[in-house]
Amino acid sequence: MSDIDRRLLLQGAAVTGLVALAPGALRAATRPPRLAPASVQRAVQDQLPATIERIQKWIRQPSVSSTGFGIADCCKLTMELLREAGFQTVKRMPTTRHPGIFATLDAGARRTLGLYFMYDVQPVEEKEWSSPPWKAALVDLPEVGKVIMGRGAVNQKGPQGAFLSALHAIRAAHEKLPVNLVLVAEGEEEQGSTHFHEVVRRSEVVRALRRSMGVVMPSAEQNLNGSVEVTLGAKGILYVEIEASGKAWGRGPTSRDVHSSLAAVVDSPVWRLVEALQTLRSKDGNEPAIDGLAENVRPTSDADKKLFDALAKSVDEAEMKKSLTVDRWVGDLGERAMLERLGSRPSINIDGIFAGYTGEGSKTILPERAVAKVDIRLVPDLTADDVMAKLRKHLDRRGYKDLAIRRIGGYDPTQTRLDARLVQAQIGLYRARKLDVTVRPRAAGSWPGYLFTTAPVGVAAGHYGMGYGDRAHSKDEYYVVEPPAGARFAGLAGAVTSYADYLYTLASG
Amino acid sequence: MSDIDRRLLLQGAAVTGLVALAPGALRAATRPPRLAPASVQRAVQDQLPATIERIQKWIRQPSVSSTGFGIADCCKLTMELLREAGFQTVKRMPTTRHPGIFATLDAGARRTLGLYFMYDVQPVEEKEWSSPPWKAALVDLPEVGKVIMGRGAVNQKGPQGAFLSALHAIRAAHEKLPVNLVLVAEGEEEQGSTHFHEVVRRSEVVRALRRSMGVVMPSAEQNLNGSVEVTLGAKGILYVEIEASGKAWGRGPTSRDVHSSLAAVVDSPVWRLVEALQTLRSKDGNEPAIDGLAENVRPTSDADKKLFDALAKSVDEAEMKKSLTVDRWVGDLGERAMLERLGSRPSINIDGIFAGYTGEGSKTILPERAVAKVDIRLVPDLTADDVMAKLRKHLDRRGYKDLAIRRIGGYDPTQTRLDARLVQAQIGLYRARKLDVTVRPRAAGSWPGYLFTTAPVGVAAGHYGMGYGDRAHSKDEYYVVEPPAGARFAGLAGAVTSYADYLYTLASG
Repeated sequence: MSDIDRRLLLQGAAVTGLVALAPGALRAATRPPRLAPASVQRAVQDQLPATIERIQKWIRQPSVSSTGFGIADCCKLTMELLREAGFQTVKRMPTTRHPGIFATLDAGARRTLGLYFMYDVQPVEEKEWSSPPWKAALVDLPEVGKVIMGRGAVNQKGPQGAFLSALHAIRAAHEKLPVNLVLVAEGEEEQGSTHFHEVVRRSEVVRALRRSMGVVMPSAEQNLNGSVEVTLGAKGILYVEIEASGKAWGRGPTSRDVHSSLAAVVDSPVWRLVEALQTLRSKDGNEPAIDGLAENVRPTSDADKKLFDALAKSVDEAEMKKSLTVDRWVGDLGERAMLERLGSRPSINIDGIFAGYTGEGSKTILPERAVAKVDIRLVPDLTADDVMAKLRKHLDRRGYKDLAIRRIGGYDPTQTRLDARLVQAQIGLYRARKLDVTVRPRAAGSWPGYLFTTAPVGVAAGHYGMGYGDRAHSKDEYYVVEPPAGARFAGLAGAVTSYADYLYTLASG
Repeated sequence: MSDIDRRLLLQGAAVTGLVALAPGALRAATRPPRLAPASVQRAVQDQLPATIERIQKWIRQPSVSSTGFGIADCCKLTMELLREAGFQTVKRMPTTRHPGIFATLDAGARRTLGLYFMYDVQPVEEKEWSSPPWKAALVDLPEVGKVIMGRGAVNQKGPQGAFLSALHAIRAAHEKLPVNLVLVAEGEEEQGSTHFHEVVRRSEVVRALRRSMGVVMPSAEQNLNGSVEVTLGAKGILYVEIEASGKAWGRGPTSRDVHSSLAAVVDSPVWRLVEALQTLRSKDGNEPAIDGLAENVRPTSDADKKLFDALAKSVDEAEMKKSLTVDRWVGDLGERAMLERLGSRPSINIDGIFAGYTGEGSKTILPERAVAKVDIRLVPDLTADDVMAKLRKHLDRRGYKDLAIRRIGGYDPTQTRLDARLVQAQIGLYRARKLDVTVRPRAAGSWPGYLFTTAPVGVAAGHYGMGYGDRAHSKDEYYVVEPPAGARFAGLAGAVTSYADYLYTLASG
């Protein structure tokens, strides 16, 4: 459910410069950021083998939140990694399902940074991988160099492991950590963070997070050409299973599949699901046609329109299409319209559908049930709760009261201001490294930033980090350790250093 | 794909008498059938343990045609069983996929009977079975007595094994077989007999079958209350896979799943499939809405209407609903209308549908492809070839040229006349055993009888046999060996005897 997968959108994008930087963004950029001392930079280099091993160890401990595979052990391992990195209190936070973690590091500093980690990963189809997903092998890839390949490599164990290495390096250099840290982690990010509010909204956690400048998730933010994007917000998501069954319907077979010859006289829950799904989507794209949803979609502001104009200039559409293996956009949109739609319109998608016999060849049955997995992406001012209620009402009004809707995950849209310290420090650092920076008003993907940006916490939230990786949610996911000569993106040492630099910059001024 | 599964329709039906017998049917019934000599009947009893072992051995050799599991070995075993039963020539008949068998037994008799066997079975979900599907264990079931439980027990290894035992018994009693036999067998019946025509239409086979009175498949035809139904015809079937893919479409992801947040701008093959499927079905039932199909559906004849009237009187609708776990028929039809619709209208069914992530919890992907398994049941004068062409044209006309249609199986409707010797002999024998008989003009299920009833063979074809079994295509399939005291259906010895009686009756007069 993660998505930081803006890389999916922009891989290889040729960013043409600072075109997307609104005037406000330049304010901080004019104040030079403060880089980590040379001693820290040397320690990062010295400890690189240990950094690689730490990330490998983390990946080798599976943690598939959808099935629970390895979750308990990975929670324990993550807590160990935090203690080793210097966190003084590290608490397991039980939730209704997978446990979260709350950890603090008091460095006696003036400012506090919030951190958001996830320790869970997406499921895998092992046989599809060219290197086993839990092996975390070092693999050479022609275009991007030496990588760690494995499930969770870039989403999110690699970048998080690099962040922890920044703390190790500062300690090894006998430097004082420039900011205090408050960390929350969860094991259900890929499941829509269903129970993460049970961690974040506990009073001790709220108190601690409110004291922070904002909450950041370590991430590999660079594109292949080295450019970065600063994303101010993200869509929300509602993920549901919709099930038609003879039992709930009172028509069709109510407790077992029957022979398919009976279709002449027996109703089919599969046809019912197909028919109901069809009412949920606009004909001209993958936009929800759920009653009353469109009226809550906030029109794109003039400020955002300008950011989209700039974005269109910086994105290499051909590269983006190639990376996605897509020849045409919905409705044959042009690049500018596509980018605005991606950032500002809700979408409805069938992530999976299944019923009856799905093996080889034929089996003649009329199935008793059919299920679709559906996700709806939310923009302001849609909320997951509201869309869930509207979906129910939409189906009920059309006579589909029998269709079960099971909420698997959901969160609201999140938004942070361009002038937030968290954001300004990022832009300053990227500029100091001579990277092209683009500002995107809203990512199409989703993450639970709304838990930080809305009450009762109400601080800034975003992602940060140099480095490169790809194929989150797909086979052969990887995170780059050592780019080929001439590469314009940072390797693992550069990523670790970027986190150390960030801590010093946030503390300064 | 089999379907002799009229048992699914009529389990426990309370047949009220000979109400369904049209006048012509009574002609033969007035001439007493010729039963097997007492010596043969004794031999059947003596050999009962060997009969059980033969059926168990056959079931214990898996033969799942959809995957090919055990097919080659089961073909070999079936050929052995035929040789042991006295067939003098037994030839393996290679086809494009699974081999068929052609066998003959020249008894020097005046008449020849054609036989149709299948040696393949449906797939299994082993963990769902209460006794392992390949164990063929003898199990006691409260209502029906001692049974052989296993995949293929009733569909069709049990009844076919019982038929072979009739040949063994006649030989053991030193009697001369009263008819010659010509047998064709296939290993793809459950796959729609896709290549069986390559066996039946070979010239030596056509010549041999044309000399026969007709072709019969041994079957367990009794209902729980002992009644039987003689079915004169069967619907045909077209079984296809319909696939939407980004690759063929030129829209959406063309070679891998992409992140679901992209649904705002990337087309979805899953939505496309859902949309296209929706055009294939009438809103008021599961009837095909394929352009031009309805006009080829032959209206129900007055003679058939009378048979349906009689059928409605003999079928216990409440029992039928209970057995199917169905509370209401399509369109809330009454019993009489339901029975006619089942026998005379085409249907369209989704046997299976799948796309994307179908595991537990959530995975956020926009899948590159989606597949539906669809079967269309055919009545006269629809043919599988014609409907396949119309389906293609229907989709093309609506812009779905990119949807792939893969034909998995298909056969045309089949029909035999009530006055055929094959049918008259059956009715005579059932009456001699004081069984209630109903004549059904057409079964809703399908079997490849059209290969025998249409050119170039053009003889009668049907099923025959006493005995009882159930759960073909489902878990815990069984065939009864020894019914409880007072049961009105025959056990295994009665079934074997019924086949011996049939051979003597067909030879007489």
